[in-house]
Amino acid sequence: MDLPIDQLRFDSAGLIPAIIQDWKTEQVLMMAWMNREAVLRTIETNKTHFFSRSRNKLWLKGESSGHVQHVKSIRTDCDLDVLLVHVEQIGAACHEGYASCFFREHESSARDWKIVGQKMFDPETVYKK
Amino acid sequence: MDLPIDQLRFDSAGLIPAIIQDWKTEQVLMMAWMNREAVLRTIETNKTHFFSRSRNKLWLKGESSGHVQHVKSIRTDCDLDVLLVHVEQIGAACHEGYASCFFREHESSARDWKIVGQKMFDPETVYKK
Repeated sequence: MDLPIDQLRFDSAGLIPAIIQDWKTEQVLMMAWMNREAVLRTIETNKTHFFSRSRNKLWLKGESSGHVQHVKSIRTDCDLDVLLVHVEQIGAACHEGYASCFFREHESSARDWKIVGQKMFDPETVYKK
Repeated sequence: MDLPIDQLRFDSAGLIPAIIQDWKTEQVLMMAWMNREAVLRTIETNKTHFFSRSRNKLWLKGESSGHVQHVKSIRTDCDLDVLLVHVEQIGAACHEGYASCFFREHESSARDWKIVGQKMFDPETVYKK
């Protein structure tokens, strides 16, 4: 039997971008990439799994930090080539300690990005040996 | 002088994914790709511009439908390789008539995606000749 996810259009590397949004605050937390196995594992476990392009492997979000994401819903777009996943975020989404990875805002007059995010924790206390 | 956008990490095709979110409702409307010129035009005009990979050209969102997006803020993430743009959406984001392109939701027991989006208009009335 074909699954709904078989309709998804993965790119030439077998990946699809997944936007992660907090199901309550509606804050966009991060974007990462999934391959078919990551999508299946995310559905099966109700925890987000991604494919790391730099490490070339599947990973469970929060596997080292404990900051897992419990999946509330999975949507796709009109072109079936992007996912939008609503989650309950444990801890903080960003490995730099911010609630959201999108903590830098553009200011036309400035020479650098402005930090607008709220820091939830000190990364050194979470990613300690 | 270097611009903040010169810090962005475009992919090997010179593109960066841009997540578009409604600045008031916080609904994620769509994701599309920008090249450097699209980012600059978006900043200069305060209207979202994207790069179409299928048509291989820059386009102004809403150029045929009138459904432009007025930019409220532009953020980037910890890796500087994704953009999050807050906009005021005129009309509807999706060319299929839905407020958001993410109108399909996964149901584990179902064989197809469930339509959960709200249709704002009939595409045939907007994209008429």
